[in-house]
Amino acid sequence: MSKKIFEIDLSKKMHEQKHPGHNRWHPDIPAAFSVDPGESFKMECLDWTDGQISNNDDPSDIAKVNLKRVHVLSGPVHVNGVEPGDLLVVDILDIGTFSSHEWGFNGIFAKENGGSFLVDHYPDAAKSIWDFEGIYATSRHVPNVRFAGIIHPGLIGVAPSQELLDEWNRREKELVDKDPQRVPPLAELPDADSTVLGTLKGEDYDRVAKEGARTVPPRENGGNCDIKNLSKGSRIYFPVFVEGAKLSVGDLHFSQGDGEITFCGGIEIPGWIELKVNVIKGGMKKYKIEKNPAFQPGPVMPHYNEYLVFEGVSVSELDGTQQYLDANTAYRNACLNAIEYMKTLGFTGEQAYMLLGSAPVQGNIGGIVDIPNACCTLSLPKEIFDQNIIPEID
Amino acid sequence: MSKKIFEIDLSKKMHEQKHPGHNRWHPDIPAAFSVDPGESFKMECLDWTDGQISNNDDPSDIAKVNLKRVHVLSGPVHVNGVEPGDLLVVDILDIGTFSSHEWGFNGIFAKENGGSFLVDHYPDAAKSIWDFEGIYATSRHVPNVRFAGIIHPGLIGVAPSQELLDEWNRREKELVDKDPQRVPPLAELPDADSTVLGTLKGEDYDRVAKEGARTVPPRENGGNCDIKNLSKGSRIYFPVFVEGAKLSVGDLHFSQGDGEITFCGGIEIPGWIELKVNVIKGGMKKYKIEKNPAFQPGPVMPHYNEYLVFEGVSVSELDGTQQYLDANTAYRNACLNAIEYMKTLGFTGEQAYMLLGSAPVQGNIGGIVDIPNACCTLSLPKEIFDQNIIPEID
Amino acid sequence: MSKKIFEIDLSKKMHEQKHPGHNRWHPDIPAAFSVDPGESFKMECLDWTDGQISNNDDPSDIAKVNLKRVHVLSGPVHVNGVEPGDLLVVDILDIGTFSSHEWGFNGIFAKENGGSFLVDHYPDAAKSIWDFEGIYATSRHVPNVRFAGIIHPGLIGVAPSQELLDEWNRREKELVDKDPQRVPPLAELPDADSTVLGTLKGEDYDRVAKEGARTVPPRENGGNCDIKNLSKGSRIYFPVFVEGAKLSVGDLHFSQGDGEITFCGGIEIPGWIELKVNVIKGGMKKYKIEKNPAFQPGPVMPHYNEYLVFEGVSVSELDGTQQYLDANTAYRNACLNAIEYMKTLGFTGEQAYMLLGSAPVQGNIGGIVDIPNACCTLSLPKEIFDQNIIPEID
Amino acid sequence: MSKKIFEIDLSKKMHEQKHPGHNRWHPDIPAAFSVDPGESFKMECLDWTDGQISNNDDPSDIAKVNLKRVHVLSGPVHVNGVEPGDLLVVDILDIGTFSSHEWGFNGIFAKENGGSFLVDHYPDAAKSIWDFEGIYATSRHVPNVRFAGIIHPGLIGVAPSQELLDEWNRREKELVDKDPQRVPPLAELPDADSTVLGTLKGEDYDRVAKEGARTVPPRENGGNCDIKNLSKGSRIYFPVFVEGAKLSVGDLHFSQGDGEITFCGGIEIPGWIELKVNVIKGGMKKYKIEKNPAFQPGPVMPHYNEYLVFEGVSVSELDGTQQYLDANTAYRNACLNAIEYMKTLGFTGEQAYMLLGSAPVQGNIGGIVDIPNACCTLSLPKEIFDQNIIPEID
Repeated sequence: MSKKIFEIDLSKKMHEQKHPGHNRWHPDIPAAFSVDPGESFKMECLDWTDGQISNNDDPSDIAKVNLKRVHVLSGPVHVNGVEPGDLLVVDILDIGTFSSHEWGFNGIFAKENGGSFLVDHYPDAAKSIWDFEGIYATSRHVPNVRFAGIIHPGLIGVAPSQELLDEWNRREKELVDKDPQRVPPLAELPDADSTVLGTLKGEDYDRVAKEGARTVPPRENGGNCDIKNLSKGSRIYFPVFVEGAKLSVGDLHFSQGDGEITFCGGIEIPGWIELKVNVIKGGMKKYKIEKNPAFQPGPVMPHYNEYLVFEGVSVSELDGTQQYLDANTAYRNACLNAIEYMKTLGFTGEQAYMLLGSAPVQGNIGGIVDIPNACCTLSLPKEIFDQNIIPEID
Repeated sequence: MSKKIFEIDLSKKMHEQKHPGHNRWHPDIPAAFSVDPGESFKMECLDWTDGQISNNDDPSDIAKVNLKRVHVLSGPVHVNGVEPGDLLVVDILDIGTFSSHEWGFNGIFAKENGGSFLVDHYPDAAKSIWDFEGIYATSRHVPNVRFAGIIHPGLIGVAPSQELLDEWNRREKELVDKDPQRVPPLAELPDADSTVLGTLKGEDYDRVAKEGARTVPPRENGGNCDIKNLSKGSRIYFPVFVEGAKLSVGDLHFSQGDGEITFCGGIEIPGWIELKVNVIKGGMKKYKIEKNPAFQPGPVMPHYNEYLVFEGVSVSELDGTQQYLDANTAYRNACLNAIEYMKTLGFTGEQAYMLLGSAPVQGNIGGIVDIPNACCTLSLPKEIFDQNIIPEID
Repeated sequence: MSKKIFEIDLSKKMHEQKHPGHNRWHPDIPAAFSVDPGESFKMECLDWTDGQISNNDDPSDIAKVNLKRVHVLSGPVHVNGVEPGDLLVVDILDIGTFSSHEWGFNGIFAKENGGSFLVDHYPDAAKSIWDFEGIYATSRHVPNVRFAGIIHPGLIGVAPSQELLDEWNRREKELVDKDPQRVPPLAELPDADSTVLGTLKGEDYDRVAKEGARTVPPRENGGNCDIKNLSKGSRIYFPVFVEGAKLSVGDLHFSQGDGEITFCGGIEIPGWIELKVNVIKGGMKKYKIEKNPAFQPGPVMPHYNEYLVFEGVSVSELDGTQQYLDANTAYRNACLNAIEYMKTLGFTGEQAYMLLGSAPVQGNIGGIVDIPNACCTLSLPKEIFDQNIIPEID
Repeated sequence: MSKKIFEIDLSKKMHEQKHPGHNRWHPDIPAAFSVDPGESFKMECLDWTDGQISNNDDPSDIAKVNLKRVHVLSGPVHVNGVEPGDLLVVDILDIGTFSSHEWGFNGIFAKENGGSFLVDHYPDAAKSIWDFEGIYATSRHVPNVRFAGIIHPGLIGVAPSQELLDEWNRREKELVDKDPQRVPPLAELPDADSTVLGTLKGEDYDRVAKEGARTVPPRENGGNCDIKNLSKGSRIYFPVFVEGAKLSVGDLHFSQGDGEITFCGGIEIPGWIELKVNVIKGGMKKYKIEKNPAFQPGPVMPHYNEYLVFEGVSVSELDGTQQYLDANTAYRNACLNAIEYMKTLGFTGEQAYMLLGSAPVQGNIGGIVDIPNACCTLSLPKEIFDQNIIPEID
């Protein structure tokens, strides 16, 4: 039986919890717990915004969300005997919702506050609340669909070393400096505002708050990868950069479409996760898993397998400019093509957009060498709709 | 029973065939055949290079391939009664190899002649020959793997209207003009050299050869999408731009990995394809399938479902520069991570690279909003290896 | 959010619970709760034996189990407005274990007390305890295997009408009368010993205890079907025989192989189930679902799909006698063939047998018309073993 | 490339072919060809009835079929160096139809001539012709369905030793002797009428014709197993009983439902099969594959995975008699329940019955120990219907 090591009180903010978590990456954030290789344990998590979004029909909380607060994470967990150069093996044994909180939210961030993948087309905030009935999600804001969730942590990662952290801060600052006034910004740099750093206090707190990397991007340590298939039964191999690895987790999603295109996000939930850790000594070099984690997906994902697939190529949808093998533009066009199609089924654009962010849609790279057009596809599972979504032949 | 409408003699070049095909897109290339909606028919295809690559161990044919010759296509087929604004519905009823030609090729193009997705890491030409035993492929050049093909047309599309063709030529020229000397080039513009244009002759030939768009990129008409799942049993919905739609097909692949990252290409073959056509009158507006085709995949793809997944984020692997949500860089890193891992299994870098281009590997978009890092994944099917490829826990 | 309507105290026997359940089928067992069509609710269940089996290495509890006590069921639930002739639609929204009870048992019943499918080969009692780590099960008694459960209710059904009950008792008595002394018996007839009948008392209790059908066999009302794929997300259509339908559930399995061949049984657990009910008025006639339930399986079963398949035909394995198209003999031979094979992998016969009862093995009917031999198959998933189980070619 | 070793002329009967095949099992039928372990080769096959059934709407050919003629097989193939006690490993590399014969037949045998699984309910002959469009089958006789075939050999096996043959003839005669006048018969004994025995002549022919076992039942040598998943890419492990193994194949099916319940049969076709053979010396003992073949299914079966499932239990549908754990009765009831349901969708009983014999329906054993009722299920794939087949909630 797994021991419970990180309990959460849903009525409190992260810094008020018995074990305050953290919302920045830094090697000096103290571990909340220690476990041995071979142990399994349960951790509870708040939703990524620290409870800023309410179960109602008003998107103004999405519009005004304090993004400096995200992502509130549970951890770090120190794994005894694990050292830099090792691989930390993490099994996601199970994940679930709280029976007292059987709903989640998806939203489109406003251009002025975060933006999203289709920000030029959908610049305003929107919100959808998703209710859970067992393994299924439905939404009063996106009617006529129902799907089984592929519940997963949007964010799971280990602590960076000081050197790696410095490298992150250097490279991201260089990017921001190219256009510091851009809305939305090119990256989020360290910012002490709204920071939670576990039990750190005083000067240590101040230093770490000033240096700590934001949790928004995925990086060498895993982090906010938002990979929808990293679900129950998966086994992850993390490169280890600090003593004890310092594993943290949060940003649980009941479900998400590939790309998490609305940015806020998948179907965002508080919940619990059951993990087991092991170690491969010296595994980073042995297996050359040095730059990013690798993983094996679990065996229980919903096997939807009838799809309607939309294609997109890398020509700008705004002005017809030809881009060079740009997968982002290609996938954006595939998404827009899907949304326009879904409007013919009776959805509004915002509903269709939020569905693409929430449902288990597949985003694939088709061809990425056929100059000058990349081709990406978006696959929409037919089975989640309560109507036939396939075009009818005359 | 399907009628045979485009027969190929494997010993002849495309312009010498009884029905010469074409290797450029232009509305004025005459149809080779006409069919009625509801009809099914079989077409034969040469490999995309028009037979330039030999079944041997020497990659010099890949290095020196004449890329102005590609892709030699079978067609166009005029579908009676189909008009601009309609959707042409095309069922891929079946696809196969010739029993006299049970092998195909994959190659890495040299930097000087085409290049590939990992051109900065693998600038030299390489070649792998794949032999077929029924549904399976193996290669003497990439030992210890065996997989079932997802046979598909890399290229299937309809003719552009003159307006659409003009738009293609305009936007692609603008891109090339940004760096006309680039190696490899940003795009391939119309070029009369090595052109095949069906039965066109004289002035018409000269005009069309001068204007005809290259077949390399996927565009609004479908074309060279290189989507590995567009296989047997798929149904495609093409927007129609000219009277009769003028459907063409070629570039058959026995198998391909998402991205076709070696550029040459998947496992390239001559072969045959059995199609059926239908029409949805006025379907482009009705279903808003106007910019690119949409499709339903068929039900018989190999159901490999145990994967080892590699992640990549959008930090340049060459100099550590931070890119902004760049899915290309992220997928490139996922590919490189997979290749480095596969080297620990005994493959050379080139073997691993060609395997990623040939086998049914999945390329997915993970998160594409988590500024500044996009996250892409490459999923490698375990079942295709004759050894265990999973890291072992101490 | 689902309401909780049937709570269980794991330290008490079924007749001591706040809401005592039942272990016989009878129309007059009073409903424990009422719900409306459209409502969802959670019920808790004891294991089928009412807690007779302990988590230890001694099979004597299996050998001496009181089979008159089984199956202790939670319910009945009265669904308001539902009448005979309707279809009761039951969604299995979710199922789970108790976090305080993360283990289950499988066992072979002794010939003298229950017997099993291979009773002539394995006449003695045996037991295996299975421990759960999230979605996975392992056993100290059957080493070197690990698999994701397909958790399901072995038994779910509605109450019979008095007429239907009488018919059951008639036909089963006729069978027993053919060989009343048989060991194991041909059927279990009503027996007042160890009976639990909800809140019934006095004369009503006595009458119902005397008439109530045993819960062992599946019948027209569903009941103990032991269908391993009737898991999370399934929707069942029950014919309705009494006012309110009177739905009951129990005998939860963490996992089971097709056939539940060890009889005790799958991996037997206490746990909870979340259900939702709807009604199709007059649905029995409309859809001709009159004799047995029909159902749609859910979308989240483990997608193991590499199998080693064993065949069996209907020739008696004991004396070589030819049977006529007998699927039982054919499946028994397929099971025995699989067990003999697994012994070459290092399992004992009992371990292999219990694994076939516990793991998600498929039992299929191959050909059932090819006189005189039926052919059945047993498919063993390769992925559940930590060694390669496939024969190696020289 | 595979060599072609058994070519068929579709206009001739089996005994008139260049290489006459055989329709009895006997060790002394001479091999038609020899191959080495490691070789792959193509064989062509006639349909199992030797061309007795025509593509028309009249079932009288089904009613009057000469069953003494079945199954006409291609082979035997002698595998060099293979001896009794070895395992013969056979890869089914590919299977296909002839482009000149893109149709197949399914039929219900009449009670007087063969009968079928539901003979008491459907005693009269019926026929359905299925037309192929690439991977798909449709029928003018069973409208509104379309499915991808899982093409497979209904019959593939090796020759018995004389001892094994004698055992077959002994045990089957004993069965027939129990009710020699039964219609349909309990088994088919050796019968020289309509026999084809390769190149055998004179006394040898007479002796073998008299002794040769009928090919109808599956037995220790594999044979007529009618396993629908033994399709492309499968690898079979055959016990070897005679020098050279003497492999034969025939009875190709474009598709079949589990059980092949109409008896005639799946969708019956002539066609070709590509095989590869290997050997495991002494494999019978080593792997205890001694009584029947074992196999691994291939990776390209249609992945239909939305089902409507019907249950059946072992109570006689004719007179309500309780059977003891009888899987045949249970599966028969599941089939009958499915047919009654399908009638509410607009099919006739015969159409529904023939669809269950032809389409990829799954037949599974649910519980086979819950005395006195076995429970079997029949799973009907939703995707093959052009209408929604799921009951609608009010």
